[in-house]
Amino acid sequence: MIRLYDYVLSGNCYKIRLLLSLLGLEWETRWIDFHPKREHKSEWFLGLNPLGQVPVLEDGDFRLRDAQAILVYLAAKHDERGRWYPAGDPRTLGEIAQWLAFADGITATASAARLHDGIFFELDADRARAGANALFRVLDEHLWFQEQEGREWLCAPGHPTIADLACFPYVALSEEGGVSRLPYPAIRRWTDRVKRIPGFIPMSGVLVA
Amino acid sequence: MIRLYDYVLSGNCYKIRLLLSLLGLEWETRWIDFHPKREHKSEWFLGLNPLGQVPVLEDGDFRLRDAQAILVYLAAKHDERGRWYPAGDPRTLGEIAQWLAFADGITATASAARLHDGIFFELDADRARAGANALFRVLDEHLWFQEQEGREWLCAPGHPTIADLACFPYVALSEEGGVSRLPYPAIRRWTDRVKRIPGFIPMSGVLVA
Repeated sequence: MIRLYDYVLSGNCYKIRLLLSLLGLEWETRWIDFHPKREHKSEWFLGLNPLGQVPVLEDGDFRLRDAQAILVYLAAKHDERGRWYPAGDPRTLGEIAQWLAFADGITATASAARLHDGIFFELDADRARAGANALFRVLDEHLWFQEQEGREWLCAPGHPTIADLACFPYVALSEEGGVSRLPYPAIRRWTDRVKRIPGFIPMSGVLVA
Repeated sequence: MIRLYDYVLSGNCYKIRLLLSLLGLEWETRWIDFHPKREHKSEWFLGLNPLGQVPVLEDGDFRLRDAQAILVYLAAKHDERGRWYPAGDPRTLGEIAQWLAFADGITATASAARLHDGIFFELDADRARAGANALFRVLDEHLWFQEQEGREWLCAPGHPTIADLACFPYVALSEEGGVSRLPYPAIRRWTDRVKRIPGFIPMSGVLVA
């Protein structure tokens, strides 16, 4: 049985729910009271993940932290067609890893600004927004270039991969942190495409339409 | 032909040289004048990597940025035995991805402190050192636990993976940023083991002994 330690407003948790749904998997949820209770920093949770972060996944006796790592594991283990993480294709694996790292950069900027604006995290929100915009410019240019080559997704194959799912949530939630996506038309076309993947599920702040 | 855009004092570049050497590959180097010339922020280099970071790798017509992504690609492509990145083993792929993300955390803390102390980067070095120590405690505890289970490396297989190479450089260089490894005996035993992998090469600040 798969168990997800999950927080309802976390984009990093949402990307796991999204892949679980897209893969047609069943799972059980253990909700974590991230705010205001800070349960992710409680002693019992630090025993699951010493970094004190959600999500954490358990699949039978196997436990894993880190949203991007969980995407890699779930796709490698449970995607029979091998499309979300094509383990036999080194170039695509390299490209995916590149965008998984980029997703962490989006978390450190766009998500940080949202934590500041939404639940009072103390941090330099203007600096976070500037960082998010710098990354969004890179992402928008890449997606525009991909479109010129006839490609709809972040990486080379003609279908989405976990790279798209890793980057999607905090881009789609960026307005909640005061980062507008209006200047980034290729990003907006791409987030619309993600929402049309069969099996897509929404979250609070990321609607279907 | 493999080409590496490389900076001699970068731990993120060194981990690529290290894997290239361990895989017995030939490569050519294009040295980047990171300091003081900031060539990684020059217009021509931003054309290679819009994030303005070394390393960048080219393998024929394929170009990739991000140190951890380059490790994934090189191991998936050029390790015939499939040990450094075991593409058929989902649990190990998940564990490796978890530690690749952790390596980025070490870069953001231990490497940041070293950039401050060594080449005058303006940042909060005390905060960076505190962050490095928090991560080193997690790493030391994990390695100690692995030893209790008879395992010498970060991930489950009985041999090193790219996870070890990703985390190694900025841990081994931490004293240059004012972070002592004396309180972390399991980390010191692990860095000694990495240095004894056949084909290991040193860098300035990371000697063989």
